Amino acid sequence: MTDYYDMSPQKARKLVRSGRITGPTSGMCAGYAQANLVILPRELAYDFLLFTQRNPKSCPVLEVSDTGSRQLRYLAQDADIATDFPRYRIYKKGELAGEYTDVEKFWRDDFVSFLIGCSFSFESALLDAGVPVRNIEENCNVPMYKTNIACTPAGIFCGSMVVSMRPLPREQVAEAVLVTGEMPRVHGAPIHIGDPEAIGITDITRPDFGDSVTVREGEVPVFWPCGVTPQNVVMNVKPEIVITHSPGHMFITDVKNAELKY
Amino acid sequence: MTDYYDMSPQKARKLVRSGRITGPTSGMCAGYAQANLVILPRELAYDFLLFTQRNPKSCPVLEVSDTGSRQLRYLAQDADIATDFPRYRIYKKGELAGEYTDVEKFWRDDFVSFLIGCSFSFESALLDAGVPVRNIEENCNVPMYKTNIACTPAGIFCGSMVVSMRPLPREQVAEAVLVTGEMPRVHGAPIHIGDPEAIGITDITRPDFGDSVTVREGEVPVFWPCGVTPQNVVMNVKPEIVITHSPGHMFITDVKNAELKY
Repeated sequence: MTDYYDMSPQKARKLVRSGRITGPTSGMCAGYAQANLVILPRELAYDFLLFTQRNPKSCPVLEVSDTGSRQLRYLAQDADIATDFPRYRIYKKGELAGEYTDVEKFWRDDFVSFLIGCSFSFESALLDAGVPVRNIEENCNVPMYKTNIACTPAGIFCGSMVVSMRPLPREQVAEAVLVTGEMPRVHGAPIHIGDPEAIGITDITRPDFGDSVTVREGEVPVFWPCGVTPQNVVMNVKPEIVITHSPGHMFITDVKNAELKY
Repeated sequence: MTDYYDMSPQKARKLVRSGRITGPTSGMCAGYAQANLVILPRELAYDFLLFTQRNPKSCPVLEVSDTGSRQLRYLAQDADIATDFPRYRIYKKGELAGEYTDVEKFWRDDFVSFLIGCSFSFESALLDAGVPVRNIEENCNVPMYKTNIACTPAGIFCGSMVVSMRPLPREQVAEAVLVTGEMPRVHGAPIHIGDPEAIGITDITRPDFGDSVTVREGEVPVFWPCGVTPQNVVMNVKPEIVITHSPGHMFITDVKNAELKY
């Protein structure tokens, strides 16, 4: 994955669109924000937008499309929401109905797309600060877990938070908190540090999404709010249709992380 | 107004509710966030929430009520949205239909209330940093102006930004930027510093809302995004009914400004 570390977002999106990148985007286009996706019919959009407003740590909205539009204004000028994620999931009534590398043929005029900040965005800031990122080292997807941390409900949406985990040497935890705390629009500071059971994770070696990574002797698991949370919450409602990205398979934006600090 | 500087928000809201405070709230309950109000029928709420998401500097949403509810969860536990602002304005089809000290008798089951951050919140932080706040010194409402700064449209809502102005000694402008820049949920850093005409303000002595304040020799007018912006934008659409606070007459929350930094 390290070939893509210094690639421009425009070039990476082109490779995604043409089907040459279909895997996780962690470690790609260092310094640029990445985004999660939730596409819902307009009739669910108000409750969902309200849910994100009430749960900004797990659901920091970077952009909401106009109804029916596949274009973005802020995160990228030349993007197509239906083709520029490496992998999509379509859920019907809460059940996974298929995984696709584009969703053009499923598009509807009443779709609203929510692009939500992703912790991959701050991984290059961690690396710059000398903090290791295990999922990049091990060239795999970040491990993600369902927790018992309740989200604030909004309309029909309620559920619990999903977190991403990165194991860190004890002496670098505070540094990681400070670095990520400056970036609230891509989840910000950790929601939990240490004991996985305290937030309802019973087996750290078996993530609910993504891949397991090595936790070394002397390392502490550090948990950040994750943009898979909204997917988890939307599934509870079993809507007729919802399209999301496949966990770890993000949209790479033209916006630098530094621009998201203020 | 200085009698209220150290009062608790609970006590101040009680005085508001009983009609003993009916004036501007600038300088009250130092350290606690204050909030602007927009109440709209549910059918307009999605477009408006999207507008706030796209215009976070002028419309930093602190809380959105459940539909029909007069209660809050986050900003205060014991509050009543229909009574706890010192003064309300009701607009019908974009025209001011009346000003009231409570709006209980106008309440509808389809109302959604938006509480939006207010720059009064950071005035005590400015004072703590030794930066003067003229509207507090002169015991009057802050001057507010319509500008030519376009907001990002959302659905039916579009329009330009309203700003509040505080004149500052040249050598304290940078300090004021740093202090307020730490508080993005109550408008954050100034949107403009200096020449009023650059943002479409032709006469600094005649604000569109609030009172005029003295600008002394050697002082620079400093402009912050203002929570009256959404009122200005909503009026463009001339909705059947909208209720707002009267400019400067804010809700005093139980949330400390310091809690809004992260």
